[in-house]
Amino acid sequence: MIRGSTQLVAIIGSPIAQVKSPENFNAWFAENGQDLAMIAVDMAEQNLAGFIQALRGWNNLRGCVVTVPYKQVLASQLDGLSKRAAALGSVNVIRREADGRLLGDNVDGEGFLKAARAHGFQPAERRALVIGSGGVGAAIAYSLCEGGVRQLVIADLDQPRAQALAERLQAAFPQLEIGNRYASLEAFDLVVNATPVGMGGTGETPLPGVLLETLSPAALVADVVTSPVLTPFLELARNLGCRIQTGPEMARAQMGNLGAHMGVMPLDA
Amino acid sequence: MIRGSTQLVAIIGSPIAQVKSPENFNAWFAENGQDLAMIAVDMAEQNLAGFIQALRGWNNLRGCVVTVPYKQVLASQLDGLSKRAAALGSVNVIRREADGRLLGDNVDGEGFLKAARAHGFQPAERRALVIGSGGVGAAIAYSLCEGGVRQLVIADLDQPRAQALAERLQAAFPQLEIGNRYASLEAFDLVVNATPVGMGGTGETPLPGVLLETLSPAALVADVVTSPVLTPFLELARNLGCRIQTGPEMARAQMGNLGAHMGVMPLDA
Repeated sequence: MIRGSTQLVAIIGSPIAQVKSPENFNAWFAENGQDLAMIAVDMAEQNLAGFIQALRGWNNLRGCVVTVPYKQVLASQLDGLSKRAAALGSVNVIRREADGRLLGDNVDGEGFLKAARAHGFQPAERRALVIGSGGVGAAIAYSLCEGGVRQLVIADLDQPRAQALAERLQAAFPQLEIGNRYASLEAFDLVVNATPVGMGGTGETPLPGVLLETLSPAALVADVVTSPVLTPFLELARNLGCRIQTGPEMARAQMGNLGAHMGVMPLDA
Repeated sequence: MIRGSTQLVAIIGSPIAQVKSPENFNAWFAENGQDLAMIAVDMAEQNLAGFIQALRGWNNLRGCVVTVPYKQVLASQLDGLSKRAAALGSVNVIRREADGRLLGDNVDGEGFLKAARAHGFQPAERRALVIGSGGVGAAIAYSLCEGGVRQLVIADLDQPRAQALAERLQAAFPQLEIGNRYASLEAFDLVVNATPVGMGGTGETPLPGVLLETLSPAALVADVVTSPVLTPFLELARNLGCRIQTGPEMARAQMGNLGAHMGVMPLDA
């Protein structure tokens, strides 16, 4: 139970009711006897500047996980960024230093790969399709490049954004084959939905069904959406015989990385 | 356990680790099956403006209890005040309306009197001494006047502040005898410490021991300090045979009033 002495961490986004991080973090804190708690903060965009000012003076708050739709807008308001957060222009975690300075990092890609490795996926020399070039899509794409994929395709209805990300990654990883074109899905070893499509039970899939039916049964198919756990996209992939990776699996895999950045957990928690 | 869906209330002050409200509120929420939690916020004074801006946009936060030292400074930053909060120039609770407007009230005096009535004290026609003319002292003094005390004396090392409060109350309650002078304590039916003296186990009392020894054994002696529960002031009063009322008793008594203002509890919780 939260007391006056309890140190806090937060997760900020909007909407926020669907996030699983508070349950995961609070279960870990309780199991490990820590007087710590995670709260979920649903903040309106026009009040983010006030929230950031409040974070700097919030003496019993250790840090803040950042989720949709604030990963990019908050990256520009902090006092320091990790190399990858700066390269991505987005943060998914903020540490509050004792002097109030706010330092951002982005461990979405690391978390995604941790979960994918648990499914037997190793990125080196593989072919991957990332659907969505927003904050989480860019982070996953960046980590796949670091992991040495042979080919990376980035798909987005916002074509210029997808192309800009592909060009940025190609410049950073010139030896890889990075692009935006694909005719079918059969060549891909990994297909990831990194868009919010399917969230909240809309029944929608991020690509048309006729295209999804070209998935290879050997592929790992992953979704970043956490609610519902089994999106229509993942259901379809499972019916095709693919291995699937859910949003909560990715969230759970990166918990230690988020907690370690905020100084409240070991990396492997 | 806090989840993504959990609605929040907060208590803000600095320091904050000593406050009992989170334990009281969270126990009530759990017993009543409410998906609500109270967090304690230790905020630096120079970041209060950011915190208030964040509150206005904080969609899953219902309100905020205000404690030392921010009851007065925050009263001037809200969008509306109750009559008593405006009269006192201090708030101890803020409700966040659905549109983000912040409305302040001050139920410190009401909570104090609720606890005192449970000890058999009825304010009408009694003589009371309030030590301390800050936020909580003023609120208790105001409620005692509303309750119809015959005589009210306000003592403070900061004489001008005590005198200003006495004059303000005298103007609002012209039929009462309100002042700052007293030679001994024997005439008082109620003596309240409304200063932080004794907080944190310093061993200090708000009046000199030789004066405290003139307490009438028939008096109710109360303290607003919550930690330690039994302050040196209360210990001395108890040894003289007085009934005593602790800070946590007052905090517990006003919980329903605070919760009702924030819309998360009935008045009698």
